[in-house]
Amino acid sequence: MSPGNLMNDNVRRVDIRDCSIGGPELTIMAGPCSIESREQIFKAAEVVAASGARFLRGGAFKVRTSPTAFQGLGWDGWKLLREAADAFGLLTVSEVLEEDQIEKAREYIDLAQIGSRNMQNTPLLKAFGRSGMPVLLKRGFGCTIDEWLHAAEYILREGNEDVLLCERGIRTFETATRFTLDVAAIPIAKARLGLPVVVDPSHAAGHVDWVECLTLSGVAGGGDGLLIETHPDPAAAKSDGKQAVLLSDFGALMEKAGRVAAAVGRTVPAPSMLAAVAR
Amino acid sequence: MSPGNLMNDNVRRVDIRDCSIGGPELTIMAGPCSIESREQIFKAAEVVAASGARFLRGGAFKVRTSPTAFQGLGWDGWKLLREAADAFGLLTVSEVLEEDQIEKAREYIDLAQIGSRNMQNTPLLKAFGRSGMPVLLKRGFGCTIDEWLHAAEYILREGNEDVLLCERGIRTFETATRFTLDVAAIPIAKARLGLPVVVDPSHAAGHVDWVECLTLSGVAGGGDGLLIETHPDPAAAKSDGKQAVLLSDFGALMEKAGRVAAAVGRTVPAPSMLAAVAR
Amino acid sequence: MSPGNLMNDNVRRVDIRDCSIGGPELTIMAGPCSIESREQIFKAAEVVAASGARFLRGGAFKVRTSPTAFQGLGWDGWKLLREAADAFGLLTVSEVLEEDQIEKAREYIDLAQIGSRNMQNTPLLKAFGRSGMPVLLKRGFGCTIDEWLHAAEYILREGNEDVLLCERGIRTFETATRFTLDVAAIPIAKARLGLPVVVDPSHAAGHVDWVECLTLSGVAGGGDGLLIETHPDPAAAKSDGKQAVLLSDFGALMEKAGRVAAAVGRTVPAPSMLAAVAR
Amino acid sequence: MSPGNLMNDNVRRVDIRDCSIGGPELTIMAGPCSIESREQIFKAAEVVAASGARFLRGGAFKVRTSPTAFQGLGWDGWKLLREAADAFGLLTVSEVLEEDQIEKAREYIDLAQIGSRNMQNTPLLKAFGRSGMPVLLKRGFGCTIDEWLHAAEYILREGNEDVLLCERGIRTFETATRFTLDVAAIPIAKARLGLPVVVDPSHAAGHVDWVECLTLSGVAGGGDGLLIETHPDPAAAKSDGKQAVLLSDFGALMEKAGRVAAAVGRTVPAPSMLAAVAR
Repeated sequence: MSPGNLMNDNVRRVDIRDCSIGGPELTIMAGPCSIESREQIFKAAEVVAASGARFLRGGAFKVRTSPTAFQGLGWDGWKLLREAADAFGLLTVSEVLEEDQIEKAREYIDLAQIGSRNMQNTPLLKAFGRSGMPVLLKRGFGCTIDEWLHAAEYILREGNEDVLLCERGIRTFETATRFTLDVAAIPIAKARLGLPVVVDPSHAAGHVDWVECLTLSGVAGGGDGLLIETHPDPAAAKSDGKQAVLLSDFGALMEKAGRVAAAVGRTVPAPSMLAAVAR
Repeated sequence: MSPGNLMNDNVRRVDIRDCSIGGPELTIMAGPCSIESREQIFKAAEVVAASGARFLRGGAFKVRTSPTAFQGLGWDGWKLLREAADAFGLLTVSEVLEEDQIEKAREYIDLAQIGSRNMQNTPLLKAFGRSGMPVLLKRGFGCTIDEWLHAAEYILREGNEDVLLCERGIRTFETATRFTLDVAAIPIAKARLGLPVVVDPSHAAGHVDWVECLTLSGVAGGGDGLLIETHPDPAAAKSDGKQAVLLSDFGALMEKAGRVAAAVGRTVPAPSMLAAVAR
Repeated sequence: MSPGNLMNDNVRRVDIRDCSIGGPELTIMAGPCSIESREQIFKAAEVVAASGARFLRGGAFKVRTSPTAFQGLGWDGWKLLREAADAFGLLTVSEVLEEDQIEKAREYIDLAQIGSRNMQNTPLLKAFGRSGMPVLLKRGFGCTIDEWLHAAEYILREGNEDVLLCERGIRTFETATRFTLDVAAIPIAKARLGLPVVVDPSHAAGHVDWVECLTLSGVAGGGDGLLIETHPDPAAAKSDGKQAVLLSDFGALMEKAGRVAAAVGRTVPAPSMLAAVAR
Repeated sequence: MSPGNLMNDNVRRVDIRDCSIGGPELTIMAGPCSIESREQIFKAAEVVAASGARFLRGGAFKVRTSPTAFQGLGWDGWKLLREAADAFGLLTVSEVLEEDQIEKAREYIDLAQIGSRNMQNTPLLKAFGRSGMPVLLKRGFGCTIDEWLHAAEYILREGNEDVLLCERGIRTFETATRFTLDVAAIPIAKARLGLPVVVDPSHAAGHVDWVECLTLSGVAGGGDGLLIETHPDPAAAKSDGKQAVLLSDFGALMEKAGRVAAAVGRTVPAPSMLAAVAR
């Protein structure tokens, strides 16, 4: 069972500031789908930091299916994200949509997400390759593991090795969930390309009721990190509220994730330690 | 997060002889894809019993895609399965293909599997409903969760409540694995119908390298049992050898599964206890 | 473009009574999803006969997803089907669910349909192989072309060569239609196994609005026949009413199909001739 | 059968130079996957013009899955495409990958293709909306019809109404073809958004043997145009050679398409007329 095992011996570590991804400690990334207000993002930052997260997530430039849906706060959103993250000792992760945004994004964003819908946008992949900015490459929901790894190679070949992969579910005939999390993709991607894999249970589930199941499965299946949507008031969220974990439930979810992580020889940061950092 | 959580409060327990499925203890079912010889099935029985399994699996009447593939040993296979299981204190699970086999099957089989390809064979479902024989209903690989639960209702409505569901992966565009394990189907099926769900990581993976990932994910995701293919010499197996865990690796896999089970508040039978039973 | 072309040189003709399938003339099979009453099936028979159909279809033993849905009239339904067909010079096609029904079915049914959900029910396939009864083998909606052809081989290997294939759509992520018609499967199946392929646009479409598109595509793509659901009053149908073509629209649809057939070097029976047969 | 019929009464016509798309005459777009040399593209232009094509297709900036695959001739390719098209009275269609290319592209390209992998690249969609350049929007292979139409709305809402849709197959579990052509998407897209739909049988088929089937199905199913890959020497093609129709077979394919078009009340341009234009 050697090449596909869940050990990370052959996985490259990606270091972003003081955070090392791909080692024994899982990297938790959490926050709202969209940054909506100062109050919302600060509240999220406080809670996720206290529960062990290292990254604050939040979208400012949204790729929405419909042009009439909320498109995000833009640069103002990123400023709020940076401030909230700094206030609680967090790093930031957010989707960058265009090559023209990359340079300015570095001021606000520590880890740039390439979204599922942009996974095969090769000019953007190459631009990130040249920029050297750390990248979280989400799997296209209609793309095979091989296509995902080829997309990563577009970045790597330009000399940027700070690439994290993110499994977020693929599109199947099943409609009870929004997408189907492809858990086996975690060890397969690691075995083939040797990059850390972060798991996004929120987009796969599409409904909060199934986020716990997919979170724990992703940890047990070898995920090197988690990217989770959480919101102080999901019913009022401007995007993807149905899949957001209530902030007040987030700590309990992380405790469970921590227990599963320990069962597979991994750790999550101790909440108390991070709470200390945050003050 | 209440209706879809991973607690089993609303899940009906199914008792088969002295084994209670759907409670805190996971039920391990393991053995070869096909029963091939006395030596093979006894060897499998010995090892899986010593590693915590309660059921010995093995196919005697195989539904093979091609008519020229090995079709199983038939009734002779079931006799061997029964003998091997009895010798090591195990129960038996095997696929029953036809209504005409059911009565005679009860002599050899404690839990009848309805295969993925027969999930919507309604005359067979009804016949099992009338028979009262405990049934493991595999999800059709092209079927939605709702269709799977409707199939279970065909059995339940005839008065047979001893029904276990089995998630074994669905067909998607991804070809790196044979099927894609739909982990979220575990809590969804439980929440909707209240039956225990057994996870089959072997058919989903299609290759031994990814079985560990899917096994642990299935346990973390709330599976009430595991159905795993294992073989003393996978390279020589007459069917599905590529996905079979080497018998000598099975114990280590169960140890890992046990640790993840403990992390989500479940247990697996202690190997030593079962070894004692077997003697 | 030779092996996969739309010519039928290498396709075996299947002769059922005076009807030859797989030659230049398309074979039209039409009627309601379920036989519901004498009036309904006679009305359907009259209209489809007058529009060029050679087979009257109608289900008497239904495989419904849910056990509480209408399950068909059973043997009484088949008697009505036979009577209605005989009255208008038609042959009959209907789904046979179980081996035990086969012998008696021959009295009523000229062409036995093996349904999509039974495509891999190998005992049933073999029983049809032994029976020698002409079979229409529907493709499993979750099955590959290769699996479909292997299923056909289970019948052929028992010595029954009167096998027609039926492409009826596969399950995909698209929900605007009930299934996705796999038009390319027509020439691929012919090239690989040399059996005639009948197209079922009704189940693929799932809604009458798209049946015309799929009917004409199926003819243009090389279909050797059509299997179409039509009903005198779709809104009142006990099953699948949404996808049934209104009987009064059926003639116009067949005219269009006839024009496309002519464009690809095929014919459909002249309506006037059949109207004569029917009287 | 009214809302989804195959009539084009509610479909907006898109006029590009002297070519009107969406009316009774089908618009044929053909040429190689990639522009490789002057000789190759001129040869292709000559043959497709003589067979009724109005657009010469050819890629210069390729989105290839792998970064090591041929990436196209770039601007030199577009110059060759323009010259070849002008020499034979053709318009040009080619994929534009980035917003920065749009203005300069207008010199060479009459119809800009947004590729399947860019269908949800919203900054690119909006840029095309602002540019007013005619656009052929390919359906993302993992995207629903609704998502495709929403993508079109991103362009339309910026004031650009010259949008053509292109159905090119979706990703399914079937591997006998590269993708599965979703024929029903043609009338559904027309009924919902009222834009013309062009069919690409080449990418769906993935192999030349099945291109004829999908071409004729697309015409019968209501396609307003065809986008077909053809190459003077497919075995030597630098990309997608397996699915390219041999140039010397292209005329015969168009003759067949013309017969099916006539059967559904449409026309294709007479070859002789175009041959005259070309000289």
